[in-house]
Amino acid sequence: METDQLEVVRTISHLREAVARYRAAGETMALVPTMGFLHEGHLSLMRQGRSDHDRVCATLFVNPRQFAPGEDLETYPRDEAADIAKLQAEGVDLLFAPSVGEMYPTDAATTVLVTGITDCLCGASRPGFFEGVATVVTKLLLQALPDTAIFGEKDYQQLMVIKRFARDLDIPVTIRGGLTVREEDGLALSSRNAYLDQEARARAPELFRAISHAASEIASGANVDQAVMEARERLRSAGFNEIDYLDHRDAETLAMATDISRATRLFVAAWLGQTRLIDNVPVV
Amino acid sequence: METDQLEVVRTISHLREAVARYRAAGETMALVPTMGFLHEGHLSLMRQGRSDHDRVCATLFVNPRQFAPGEDLETYPRDEAADIAKLQAEGVDLLFAPSVGEMYPTDAATTVLVTGITDCLCGASRPGFFEGVATVVTKLLLQALPDTAIFGEKDYQQLMVIKRFARDLDIPVTIRGGLTVREEDGLALSSRNAYLDQEARARAPELFRAISHAASEIASGANVDQAVMEARERLRSAGFNEIDYLDHRDAETLAMATDISRATRLFVAAWLGQTRLIDNVPVV
Repeated sequence: METDQLEVVRTISHLREAVARYRAAGETMALVPTMGFLHEGHLSLMRQGRSDHDRVCATLFVNPRQFAPGEDLETYPRDEAADIAKLQAEGVDLLFAPSVGEMYPTDAATTVLVTGITDCLCGASRPGFFEGVATVVTKLLLQALPDTAIFGEKDYQQLMVIKRFARDLDIPVTIRGGLTVREEDGLALSSRNAYLDQEARARAPELFRAISHAASEIASGANVDQAVMEARERLRSAGFNEIDYLDHRDAETLAMATDISRATRLFVAAWLGQTRLIDNVPVV
Repeated sequence: METDQLEVVRTISHLREAVARYRAAGETMALVPTMGFLHEGHLSLMRQGRSDHDRVCATLFVNPRQFAPGEDLETYPRDEAADIAKLQAEGVDLLFAPSVGEMYPTDAATTVLVTGITDCLCGASRPGFFEGVATVVTKLLLQALPDTAIFGEKDYQQLMVIKRFARDLDIPVTIRGGLTVREEDGLALSSRNAYLDQEARARAPELFRAISHAASEIASGANVDQAVMEARERLRSAGFNEIDYLDHRDAETLAMATDISRATRLFVAAWLGQTRLIDNVPVV
C-alpha cells in the first residue's frame, strides 16, 4: 500500500482492520484523539507520535457526551476537509472519524466515572464533562489499541484524568502528554479561539501572561494567595468577565498546593464574553 | 514448557508475560473469572473454554468492591489449594490470583457504571454490586485480553451487564455464557451453598422447582401474575424467609416481560436463614 496516503475510516470495524494490517507488519502505532478543527497544537502531537512510532492514527469526533446542555456542542467549529488536508500534509497514516451513531448505540448504558481528581477545576465548572471524556477516550483506546495515546497539556486536568483511568482499568496503552503550543503573543492554541472577535483576541493573551507572572512570583517565594489575587485582578482589568478558577495545585493529584517542593502548576479558566478559555503553566 | 502444568501468577505483569507467550505462539485463549471455591459449575466453564481455545486462563479474586457493608465478604468461602488442584486436574493452563493491593492501588478512583439493566433484580437488592462487578471484570478483561471470556448463566443478570459494558466500551473480547450446572435435585451449584446447613440444604431445591413449574405454566399460557404468585407462595411454604424478587422478565433487556413472543426468563432471589440464593430459568 501507499504509505504516504491518509486512509480515512468511519467505522470501528474498518479502524480495526487498518490497525490489524499495521500489527501484522510488526508496526507500532500512536493514537491522537481530537475533536477536529485542527491547529498547530494538534499537529505537534501528530509529530510527537510519528517520532516514536511506525504509524500515527488521528481520531476526529466531537463527543456529545462531554458537552452539558447549554454548552457549545452545536456551534463547536468543524472543518473536516481542512482537517484531512492538514493530516495528509503531516504524513498521518489513518484518520478515524466516526458518526455519533457508530460511537453510541441507542441503548448504550455504560459510563466510566473518575472521582476525586475530577471534583475541582473544569470538573467543578463543567458537570458531567469528565464522565463524557473518560467514556469516549476509553472507547477510542479500546477500539484502536495503540501502543501510545497522546493528549495535549493545554487540557492538563483531562490528561491527568485519562492517565488515572487508563491505569485504574489496566488499559494496555501508554498515555503521554504533549507540550502546549502558543501563538507568538502567548495565547495557547485552541479550537475555541475561533470564537474570539478581534477585540477579544487582543485581550486573550493576558490569560497566559497573568498565570506566567504569578507562577514566577510563587517560584521566587512570593505569597501564593497574594500572587493568585493579583493574577485574578489582572484578568478582570484586561476585560475577562468571569473567572471559573485560578488555582495553584499539585501537578499530580490536583489538590490545592500546600508544598512547592512537589511539582505544582497554576490553572486558569476564564471567560471573554461567551468564550471560555483555559490555560495552565508549571511553577518553576 | 510443560503444557499440562498449571501456572499460577499473582501480578498483572506476570499474567501479561504468560499471555504474551501464548500469543507469540499464535495461540487463542479463553478467560474464566471466578471468586474461587470452585465447583462443577465453574469447571464446566473451564471445559467450555478449552473446547474452543488453545489456552484457558482462570482468575480467582474475591472482589471486595462487589460486596456491600454487611454482606458476606469476610465469610465468603475460600480454599485456594483445593481450587488449584481442581484447575490442575481440568488441564487449565494459567491461574491469575492477585491480591487486593495488586488489583486496587490505594488511590484507585475509577468505576465502570452501567445504568438501566442494573436497576432491577440483584441491582435493586444489592446497591453497588454491579458497579463492583463491572469495574473488576473490565480490569480482568483488559489485563488478560483473552479472545473470549466465559461467565455462568446462574448469574444471568451479571452476564447481561458484562455483555452490555463490553459492547459499550468496545472491549475487544467476546463474552459468552455457560449453562447452569445443578445438583441431582435441581439446586444450582453455587459457592454460597456451602453456607447451608442440612435442613436448609433439604429445602433449597424448591427454588428451582418453583420457578421451573411457573415457567412451564407461563409457557403453556397461564396467567403470569397467577403463576408468579403461586411460585412465591411455594417458596414461603418451603421455608424461604424472604424473597428479594421473583420476576418474569425479558431475557435481553431484563425489562418486565409483557410479550412472550420474545425470549423471557423467570428470575428469583430468596433467603434461607442468612443465606441468599439466586436462580433463573428460560420460559420455554
